[in-house]
Amino acid sequence: MTTMVLAYDYTREEEKRIIRAAKNAGIKLILCNLLESPLDYSDRWDVDAAIIRPVSMFNAVYAASYFESMKVLTVNPSYTILYAGDKVLTYSLLRSANIPIPRTILSLGDDSLYAAAKRLGFPLVDKPPIGSWGRLVSLVENEHQLTTIAEHRAMLPSKQFRAHILQEYIATANADIRCLMVGDEVIGCIKRIARRGEWRSNVALGARVEPYKPDSELIELVHKALTVFKGMFLSIDIFEHKENGYLVNEVNGVPEFKGFIRATGIRVEEILIGKILEKLRR
Amino acid sequence: MTTMVLAYDYTREEEKRIIRAAKNAGIKLILCNLLESPLDYSDRWDVDAAIIRPVSMFNAVYAASYFESMKVLTVNPSYTILYAGDKVLTYSLLRSANIPIPRTILSLGDDSLYAAAKRLGFPLVDKPPIGSWGRLVSLVENEHQLTTIAEHRAMLPSKQFRAHILQEYIATANADIRCLMVGDEVIGCIKRIARRGEWRSNVALGARVEPYKPDSELIELVHKALTVFKGMFLSIDIFEHKENGYLVNEVNGVPEFKGFIRATGIRVEEILIGKILEKLRR
Amino acid sequence: MTTMVLAYDYTREEEKRIIRAAKNAGIKLILCNLLESPLDYSDRWDVDAAIIRPVSMFNAVYAASYFESMKVLTVNPSYTILYAGDKVLTYSLLRSANIPIPRTILSLGDDSLYAAAKRLGFPLVDKPPIGSWGRLVSLVENEHQLTTIAEHRAMLPSKQFRAHILQEYIATANADIRCLMVGDEVIGCIKRIARRGEWRSNVALGARVEPYKPDSELIELVHKALTVFKGMFLSIDIFEHKENGYLVNEVNGVPEFKGFIRATGIRVEEILIGKILEKLRR
Amino acid sequence: MTTMVLAYDYTREEEKRIIRAAKNAGIKLILCNLLESPLDYSDRWDVDAAIIRPVSMFNAVYAASYFESMKVLTVNPSYTILYAGDKVLTYSLLRSANIPIPRTILSLGDDSLYAAAKRLGFPLVDKPPIGSWGRLVSLVENEHQLTTIAEHRAMLPSKQFRAHILQEYIATANADIRCLMVGDEVIGCIKRIARRGEWRSNVALGARVEPYKPDSELIELVHKALTVFKGMFLSIDIFEHKENGYLVNEVNGVPEFKGFIRATGIRVEEILIGKILEKLRR
Repeated sequence: MTTMVLAYDYTREEEKRIIRAAKNAGIKLILCNLLESPLDYSDRWDVDAAIIRPVSMFNAVYAASYFESMKVLTVNPSYTILYAGDKVLTYSLLRSANIPIPRTILSLGDDSLYAAAKRLGFPLVDKPPIGSWGRLVSLVENEHQLTTIAEHRAMLPSKQFRAHILQEYIATANADIRCLMVGDEVIGCIKRIARRGEWRSNVALGARVEPYKPDSELIELVHKALTVFKGMFLSIDIFEHKENGYLVNEVNGVPEFKGFIRATGIRVEEILIGKILEKLRR
Repeated sequence: MTTMVLAYDYTREEEKRIIRAAKNAGIKLILCNLLESPLDYSDRWDVDAAIIRPVSMFNAVYAASYFESMKVLTVNPSYTILYAGDKVLTYSLLRSANIPIPRTILSLGDDSLYAAAKRLGFPLVDKPPIGSWGRLVSLVENEHQLTTIAEHRAMLPSKQFRAHILQEYIATANADIRCLMVGDEVIGCIKRIARRGEWRSNVALGARVEPYKPDSELIELVHKALTVFKGMFLSIDIFEHKENGYLVNEVNGVPEFKGFIRATGIRVEEILIGKILEKLRR
Repeated sequence: MTTMVLAYDYTREEEKRIIRAAKNAGIKLILCNLLESPLDYSDRWDVDAAIIRPVSMFNAVYAASYFESMKVLTVNPSYTILYAGDKVLTYSLLRSANIPIPRTILSLGDDSLYAAAKRLGFPLVDKPPIGSWGRLVSLVENEHQLTTIAEHRAMLPSKQFRAHILQEYIATANADIRCLMVGDEVIGCIKRIARRGEWRSNVALGARVEPYKPDSELIELVHKALTVFKGMFLSIDIFEHKENGYLVNEVNGVPEFKGFIRATGIRVEEILIGKILEKLRR
Repeated sequence: MTTMVLAYDYTREEEKRIIRAAKNAGIKLILCNLLESPLDYSDRWDVDAAIIRPVSMFNAVYAASYFESMKVLTVNPSYTILYAGDKVLTYSLLRSANIPIPRTILSLGDDSLYAAAKRLGFPLVDKPPIGSWGRLVSLVENEHQLTTIAEHRAMLPSKQFRAHILQEYIATANADIRCLMVGDEVIGCIKRIARRGEWRSNVALGARVEPYKPDSELIELVHKALTVFKGMFLSIDIFEHKENGYLVNEVNGVPEFKGFIRATGIRVEEILIGKILEKLRR
């Protein structure tokens, strides 16, 4: 009998679906609540695969690396979660694979911030390397606002929040395309459209979603991303730029998929479990 | 003519030595002060190699990933700096390669902390995943102290500081062995002995250093570590356990080597430059 | 008809009791949820009194000062909440009134920390100026532990947490006496006894409480404290020192009284409402 | 011989001037470096006055309260430094004395933020209760920016930074008037004019200063402020509103006066020492 462990901190709809899908597939699923269970490097885990689902990015990375050290198939590996979870690492990885990204400049100190802004011109987008649900992603219309953001960011306690990722603001009618990959297959795409009064297209910020039919160019791009991020379960956010075509803006290594299911009806959790079983059989 | 870029934030003795060694070797060295220079993903860098030296771990990772995206030989790569810079990732990687580590338990929530401590018994060592110079590495003698540390750690603003790495306290007369690897060679080892009144053997905490002659077992261990951490420039800290032999305790992907030079007379920076040139020629 | 406003952020048992008591007394009570209501300095508040009850100390101080600016009888005034809410201000105020306190040294920098510890000797108690429910109140048994606490405290982001209040550890069988004052009357006292395995006698940390009959010396001390802290509703925590007698350890300007009621049966909220009405009539 | 203590953390030009002035006046001045000296509540300080000068607001408050507890004339008292150091307390105190302030709304939770902004209209000014040199004082031109600031402020670790003081933006050609009070006398005023490209008139942000001759209305206003803030050494910042006349915007209880001296030639430190001696003789 196949045994898997689900590493989680909070049980969202996604985790409940995975638990159900594993049960339906006849898998023995061990629930590992990371807030309650010590992870002992001397333990032996007699499991075939680990599904990594914490909300906290760091807990996800740590749990993934722990189960990797046990030589368990880990979905996703720590590498994938780390490089997708930090936007600087994401852009570097995409760029190294010649995947188009929005015009992006990294500023690691206040002295380089205004020089970077000058290169891009206003309005621009400023965001820190980490963070979910669009939080701290800021539209900056002039130098006063850049100063305001710089002063606030300088007081955030974690070094990672003090790095500035500056980007061209892309007029896309405040929408983006999210593609979901399971195994090495694009299982579907959705379009996310920002709610009125909000320019960010995050579902957590009220965006509505609708199914989206990808063309072959988009699918090729997403496959290219998979080769550098690795992993078996990714969501990839893409802007459609009027002149420059598709631009990859974000990758997520522990994707939420509640909104995706609502828009497409595709049972993500079942495909995920299926693909893991397939991989284990190989 | 070979061109290299030195990415740094502060100029310590180590960076000054590297600048001198590069000059002596006839290399054109571009100084990239990360606090002043925007890192533009649209730029082309016509350099052969990037030497990554920021004091800040995150700046080091970001600079490394940026130069990797430019397809420049990066010493060290972001992967190495990341997995060495975070102690959870370090122990996971070591464990996955069957390299012996101190008895270690990871606790990601207060509920698992006391259970983990019970398994290890007191005294134990509690440390967060990130941090340099021994900071926050705590000797915990009883449950009151564990509570004190847990309460303080819970108020630290970065999630990474809230993870607890609990370890057996190893009675090694408050000393450890530091091995320096350049290219794929162990260029020397030192012993670090804690100053009186301090149990941690960090030079930043006043430890004295002396040269140390490694045996073949130690050298083999360090080579094994290199295969998983990759990179070209690592320091590896090792405890000598009475019963369990050598245990790898820490890996550093942007090693300081001022103290090493003082103890051994080995010109680290010249070997480093030489090894990079060698690699470029291959 | 008397009108009062209750300023709160969360509705604990205490606030529910106050709401009921006000209703029973025929008072019109306006509920002001501080998280939802803007406090506009241009507004007029046609109320007779404001009862300040936020859990957050700063919200309590801000709400109190706002209603004071409206010339409303404010229970407690911002001054009382501030000087009771910060333990350095508390000890200074007590000391200025010649009220006995535990042997206390304030350290505002790491350089003075070890000198202060040397004066007191180990074990000692180290706590920051702000904080409730005993949090961060640390028993320090030796210099290693002091270093551990100093390193952690130095990384806490608020300046107030970086100040160290060092005190003699008082062997009181881990108990203290809490006196509750309403108007200018001591309405009762309880003894708080730490749960097994915990030396701090905070109810939030599991302490049990029992009624306690104060003697005249204790009552006199508490009245003395009232003259400097002012206000109409205070809880005062007192140690009984074998040689030095009663020592005031803490004052609370927004006291919780759920545990007090359980131990004594005294209806605090009714007395409070009564005393405010009495004061308004004068 | 008169003895005074100077409590400080860093020695700026202001502190050097005070040291010199005390010496010239024949005063025995004890230098108390707060980062190095433990403040022991059991000590006796045989001094006549304490001059409180730390850069850190909390260190200033703590030092003031400590010396007050020793019954020493303290310039300024903790009360003054606290109520001037926190802008919510400042506005409440000014308002309670019927001193005109800019149109101001306090928001203690995100739910009240947009309601407050709606009342004021854009552009508006948003600032936290604490902070010096204009830091985090933000000009907010639209709702997107308000969201950006709210998201950043929510991640600042200290509760005090999460309170929002919202104010009308006053078009004053980016200038304000600073009045300096020593004893109970206005010793002079300056006008601070923001540098080009900056709307805030803080000297730390590059503002230039020029002497300013106050009229009787301004002087009366400043005296009114002194009656509520108490203390012997205050700077008071005032906007001149086209329709509403003088509005007190800020009070400082540990004023810097380097720029004031440069603009006016008035020897602030000598007047300060003189006024303290005068007070001691009374």
